[in-house]
Amino acid sequence: MNLVLLFKDDFISSARVQLKDRRRDHIAKILKSKSGDLISVGLCDGKVGKGTVVQIGETVLLDVVLNEKPPAALALTLILALPRPHMFKRALAFAASLGIKKIVILNFVRVEKSLWNSSTLKPENIREQLLLGLEQSRDTILPEVVIKKNFKVFVKQELPALLKGSLGLLAHPGGQDSCPRAIEQKVTLVIGPEGGIVPSELTLLQEAGFKTVDLGPRILRVDAVLPYIVGKLAF
Amino acid sequence: MNLVLLFKDDFISSARVQLKDRRRDHIAKILKSKSGDLISVGLCDGKVGKGTVVQIGETVLLDVVLNEKPPAALALTLILALPRPHMFKRALAFAASLGIKKIVILNFVRVEKSLWNSSTLKPENIREQLLLGLEQSRDTILPEVVIKKNFKVFVKQELPALLKGSLGLLAHPGGQDSCPRAIEQKVTLVIGPEGGIVPSELTLLQEAGFKTVDLGPRILRVDAVLPYIVGKLAF
Repeated sequence: MNLVLLFKDDFISSARVQLKDRRRDHIAKILKSKSGDLISVGLCDGKVGKGTVVQIGETVLLDVVLNEKPPAALALTLILALPRPHMFKRALAFAASLGIKKIVILNFVRVEKSLWNSSTLKPENIREQLLLGLEQSRDTILPEVVIKKNFKVFVKQELPALLKGSLGLLAHPGGQDSCPRAIEQKVTLVIGPEGGIVPSELTLLQEAGFKTVDLGPRILRVDAVLPYIVGKLAF
Repeated sequence: MNLVLLFKDDFISSARVQLKDRRRDHIAKILKSKSGDLISVGLCDGKVGKGTVVQIGETVLLDVVLNEKPPAALALTLILALPRPHMFKRALAFAASLGIKKIVILNFVRVEKSLWNSSTLKPENIREQLLLGLEQSRDTILPEVVIKKNFKVFVKQELPALLKGSLGLLAHPGGQDSCPRAIEQKVTLVIGPEGGIVPSELTLLQEAGFKTVDLGPRILRVDAVLPYIVGKLAF
């Protein structure tokens, strides 16, 4: 937690917050803060700034000044095949840390059906991972996550509008293009399932305008491949 | 497991292996292989190839042909501040997946003392994570991991020889240089502890020849920052 995220409910006056949950524990036990210490804070979906510790007890009181913009968003929309739960949680947190603001969780033929019953897909659990990611990278702007269980309908009806004005890239072993680097253009990135995408899915994505990019002979796990590709792409 | 790693002890004749452990379970339960199926295999520290399933029961018998080189190593030596156990495990697996072949686990002022008692540091546990990483990326060459608990002695006495002929980079918020990209030169990369490095450590590393590179305003977790930087650096 490199930034303590605040919510409107935390405010007990215009510039004072009262924190009770794991944020209280973090300030008291991990940071071991004392009265007068300054802590990085940010208002969820708002500005970042500093909080001065006023009191530490069962709750923590901070006087906060929120006067700076959070880090710039990454101009990348992520379309991710639903991974296994522990991988999914990390992918969400990493995506939020990396500054991705729109994430589409998509079904593919090789996504195991049972994964769709996972409790990690509950909005509150998705939100929890996103918040962890934001706290890590000192961001405040919650990414939007949408879940699309019908690949064909999504790709044919919704993807064209999403892709418009951006470079569509599909991470795909044996892809024709090498991964572009340090690009300034907006990107829509598809990361398929562990088992790979089937030919009919490949065709539909290529028809939609996606380029297939090969990342070399090493197959990385989805939680590793996401920062790996973003590292290459990010300007 | 995108490749089943084999060891000399698995061979019951010159080209036949008998597998009993989680590799047997992976082939039987995850891959659901049948007699005659081909499986990607590789000999630890040796070549990769294919195994033909001969029999599946309490053990799995494969006839193997090992005739290809594993993917090229990444020309990068990683010097990593010991992270917390779950992060350390993932960093090891990711490093192995990314093709890193030399990893130095180093003490820094801001590495919590108690972390040095973690069972994740036991050679067999380090090896387990490295093997998982190799299986993921279809590599066979085990990275060398060395543990250095004395920062000053290591940096002054051993680092100069390690750094020789390579570009020394220290990931450091506020660093003077931007991260180089797609470089063909060998790299020695330092990733410090979560809490950052202290000024005396910074000075010693700079004196040793390390450039400080800034990765932008977002602070990433060590397991995310490793593939992120490698993505940028890798040719």
